[in-house]
Amino acid sequence: MEKTLNVLDKVNMPEDLKKLSLAEMNELANEIRHYIIKKVNTTGGHLGPNLGMVEATIALHYVFNSPTDKIVFDVSHQCYPHKFLTGRKEGFTNPDKYYTYTGYTAPEESPHDWFKVGHTATSVSLAAGLAKARDLKGEKENVIAIIGDGSLSGGEAYEGLNNAAVLRSNIIVIVNDNDMSIAENQGGLYRNLRILRETNGRAECNFFKALGFDYYYIEEGHNIEKLISLFEEVKDTNHPVLIHMHTIKGKGLEVAECDKEHYHWILPGELSSDFSPAAGEDYAALTNSYLKNKHKEDSSVIAITPATPGVCGFTPEFREIMGANYTDVGIAEEHAVAYASGLAKNGAKPVLAMMSSFVQRTYDQLSQDLALNSNPATLLIFWGGISGADATHLTTFDIPLISNIPNMVYLAPTCKEEYLRMLDWSVNQNDYPVAIRVPAGEVISSGREDNTDYSILNKYKIEEKGSKVAIIGLGTFFELGKKVKKVLADKLGISATLINPRFITGLDEDMLNELKQEHSIVITLEDGELDGGFGEKITRYYGASDMKVLNFGAKKEFTDRVPLETLYERYHLTPDLIVDDIKACL
Amino acid sequence: MEKTLNVLDKVNMPEDLKKLSLAEMNELANEIRHYIIKKVNTTGGHLGPNLGMVEATIALHYVFNSPTDKIVFDVSHQCYPHKFLTGRKEGFTNPDKYYTYTGYTAPEESPHDWFKVGHTATSVSLAAGLAKARDLKGEKENVIAIIGDGSLSGGEAYEGLNNAAVLRSNIIVIVNDNDMSIAENQGGLYRNLRILRETNGRAECNFFKALGFDYYYIEEGHNIEKLISLFEEVKDTNHPVLIHMHTIKGKGLEVAECDKEHYHWILPGELSSDFSPAAGEDYAALTNSYLKNKHKEDSSVIAITPATPGVCGFTPEFREIMGANYTDVGIAEEHAVAYASGLAKNGAKPVLAMMSSFVQRTYDQLSQDLALNSNPATLLIFWGGISGADATHLTTFDIPLISNIPNMVYLAPTCKEEYLRMLDWSVNQNDYPVAIRVPAGEVISSGREDNTDYSILNKYKIEEKGSKVAIIGLGTFFELGKKVKKVLADKLGISATLINPRFITGLDEDMLNELKQEHSIVITLEDGELDGGFGEKITRYYGASDMKVLNFGAKKEFTDRVPLETLYERYHLTPDLIVDDIKACL
Repeated sequence: MEKTLNVLDKVNMPEDLKKLSLAEMNELANEIRHYIIKKVNTTGGHLGPNLGMVEATIALHYVFNSPTDKIVFDVSHQCYPHKFLTGRKEGFTNPDKYYTYTGYTAPEESPHDWFKVGHTATSVSLAAGLAKARDLKGEKENVIAIIGDGSLSGGEAYEGLNNAAVLRSNIIVIVNDNDMSIAENQGGLYRNLRILRETNGRAECNFFKALGFDYYYIEEGHNIEKLISLFEEVKDTNHPVLIHMHTIKGKGLEVAECDKEHYHWILPGELSSDFSPAAGEDYAALTNSYLKNKHKEDSSVIAITPATPGVCGFTPEFREIMGANYTDVGIAEEHAVAYASGLAKNGAKPVLAMMSSFVQRTYDQLSQDLALNSNPATLLIFWGGISGADATHLTTFDIPLISNIPNMVYLAPTCKEEYLRMLDWSVNQNDYPVAIRVPAGEVISSGREDNTDYSILNKYKIEEKGSKVAIIGLGTFFELGKKVKKVLADKLGISATLINPRFITGLDEDMLNELKQEHSIVITLEDGELDGGFGEKITRYYGASDMKVLNFGAKKEFTDRVPLETLYERYHLTPDLIVDDIKACL
Repeated sequence: MEKTLNVLDKVNMPEDLKKLSLAEMNELANEIRHYIIKKVNTTGGHLGPNLGMVEATIALHYVFNSPTDKIVFDVSHQCYPHKFLTGRKEGFTNPDKYYTYTGYTAPEESPHDWFKVGHTATSVSLAAGLAKARDLKGEKENVIAIIGDGSLSGGEAYEGLNNAAVLRSNIIVIVNDNDMSIAENQGGLYRNLRILRETNGRAECNFFKALGFDYYYIEEGHNIEKLISLFEEVKDTNHPVLIHMHTIKGKGLEVAECDKEHYHWILPGELSSDFSPAAGEDYAALTNSYLKNKHKEDSSVIAITPATPGVCGFTPEFREIMGANYTDVGIAEEHAVAYASGLAKNGAKPVLAMMSSFVQRTYDQLSQDLALNSNPATLLIFWGGISGADATHLTTFDIPLISNIPNMVYLAPTCKEEYLRMLDWSVNQNDYPVAIRVPAGEVISSGREDNTDYSILNKYKIEEKGSKVAIIGLGTFFELGKKVKKVLADKLGISATLINPRFITGLDEDMLNELKQEHSIVITLEDGELDGGFGEKITRYYGASDMKVLNFGAKKEFTDRVPLETLYERYHLTPDLIVDDIKACL
């Protein structure tokens, strides 16, 4: 079914919207929804959050005058309707332009976008800054922060609300309450939201009022007329206002309304009748199996996620089986790490799984709450490595972030046997906070059992002994090391030594010394940022010696949906380019 | 006046307390207070927070059975009374032992201490972990988290409360509400606390109830009898309980009750009649003057602090003059950075000052909210460098933390002329998020005006040209570089090149290449952790060349009140040790 454009034809920018009748706006909502579903089913992307924001976004742009009035989207994965209305509808209606625009707000795309954001809980603080600057300049526009879809559980959101509430001038916070995070919402606050919904906003005990906001409730968050009326009422307010807006995640698409968690974000083709998910083993499933088995023999094992159970194999079936031994803390990474530290201190065996990009949200807790206390929690870092992702979700920085914290043991398995051995060692030991960089991509098997005793820290493994050149291939880049070794043999006749370091957080000084005997070049390969990373420490170790050292990894930069092959070329991360660099150094 | 010991003589451990009469406990409170004042006036330390917790701590240890029942102190700078009652009173009564115990909880000192903590807002999350582990093990003890004294404004506290409220088992959170942070409390929540105090806890709109806690209010937070009665009431609760306890910061010492901010933490001798504060210029005062002047000519300049105005020269007089151009966001570093980013985006000139140790609390906001958006906010990082501080307040890690984030410009001035020039450049430019590592220690003047155009990034400065050895002395260690140069000349007859890099975040590749001509050794000196820091990047740059590189800085470790000279010896950071290392490399 191809939908004929009616209203959308006439709408490119917010000013076009202001000429529409209510009936036309309702039709526009249907059209936008239609194209979101079609486009996301082709490219993959955030589905439920955007379907829930269609009417509210239309009403916002009808009432306010963007970009003079400034709208800041939290997480910004619910900004697709906003993109339709601010000159970028072709990114949804024209399949040739499906990849033109990012899935988040992006100031370089449009003056209607204020920030590039993809991590949650940021909009209120950012908007408070815009509003305060407006006041200092003596200007008068409205500043609107949209938050919700689980973001309220993040500490930054609370810090922002607590401060925005005392601004003494115009700021309008819209809480998009769809009763969901990525998975179901967690935490005591969500009880209060429910009570407020059930009382049509009238319950006396009110989290937002307690913080000092002038509070408004709207039950019908998909009713454009009522939304417009409320937005007009609060427009140009001279004090902080908060609108609690009830919406339905996945609104207008039955499967998405029914299974809100699953349809938060979908894969290409997932809505099509012939969709079949990729089968086969992955590291998330391996984690799932390991923890379920371990839990059978030890009731103190507990799996923890900060609202991203899908990333790490914590399926609905897994959660059911784990029962009280599973905690989803909501989007609250700081709490997750401190909670894991407390659990470990009192004798439980916490395994906290999080995505590389989000571990950034908890540096101080890793350092102070966990590492300084040397509590034996296990952290699983998923998806770490160079990627073609959006700039807001890069997974390039976890090695510099984690590995320079004292006491942390950060491990880099190269295959499933090592991963499971490391995980089992970590869960059973009592001495160290351990993070494991779970390999991204397909499962690799060495075909050999791993019997390593990982309690002997910082022992690297020589996989193949050679001379002249030593290749240290960390984690997922061990496979790249193998290829480099082959090309070195083919092209230069060099039989290189191949090393699997396994430990990111320390040097095997004995081995590094031994290498001096028969090697003149050491190369390091790491799937992440070079600055502050693994390889530089090797280079520093050899600084006073005659050893030449070449470090390969990512440049310090934010990349934005750059294809992986392009990045590998740019960073000299192909076997041929690496061998060329070695040759130049010989 | 020397106080004769009465009750304290009989009390070493919690069990001793349980034998006392109420009258004796009240006398004990007086005695503890007396010794806290005396000790802190000798050694310096946290005064107000501890005076406010004397009675509550006595009542806690009377009612609960520590260490079976587990008490977690937030920030833990209010744990001195707890130390009196758990075997460590000599650290306060015996001047010879004044330095025996740390000013924070420390598990290595006592089984009554559960975590080493000094950053705020952590206790509820850590306690939630202890409580959940207890449940998994089928045990029954009480878990008590103490929070307050400003910590409630921190996002981690909120994440912790939001999750603790849904634990479905025993956890008792005690909010020590003294109506203060380090400076006055900030944010909308504090209005709600005031309303709750004014209604004796009866106001319907209640932040803690909104989060789902069973809430109790106690007005008389210094009345041991009433505290005991309330603690007995909630002891062994089967669900999350929150006690809102009103106390007086600085209780029992008139000056501290009157000026709560000033007496939060005092210098040695500050309570003595003949105390005179160190006079003279410091970098905080220079910052204060610069901002006041700049504000006169530009009303968009705004100074921001996350509750530590004293660190950076934001005196009461400064705040008065800056008026609306000053924001104390409370202990909310994440908000502070995002807020600064929003301010900069909308054309204001934010200058956010924070202590090196606390910048750790905001890595993700630096990366996502600020650097990814390239908004031109200025961050002033105070007190960065190796120190003899407590393990919870180390200032060694800010270079690895900040400098590996793309887009950030991190500057290291070596003298006041450079500092002021950099600050002025940063405030006036529109291109980069800039952090400046404000020198710690006494003000150094080069005696020369600095006219550098810092918009030309990553240009190092050769201060003295020589040969053979090049010394790159970063920031405060430029002075060390000068000394090394002198010893090299004296001992080895080498006239070394001396370089002031000024930029932490990038390499001057042209200069590094040029050095190859007449130098065979480069040394880097940095006042911070080597791992992930400045020097390693220089070493990596030279990895494929014949240049020998030696990096000097701190080892990756948490040190705990180790004297600076000891650390300098350990890390080879004296001119003689450095020259020895160079000699070994020649």
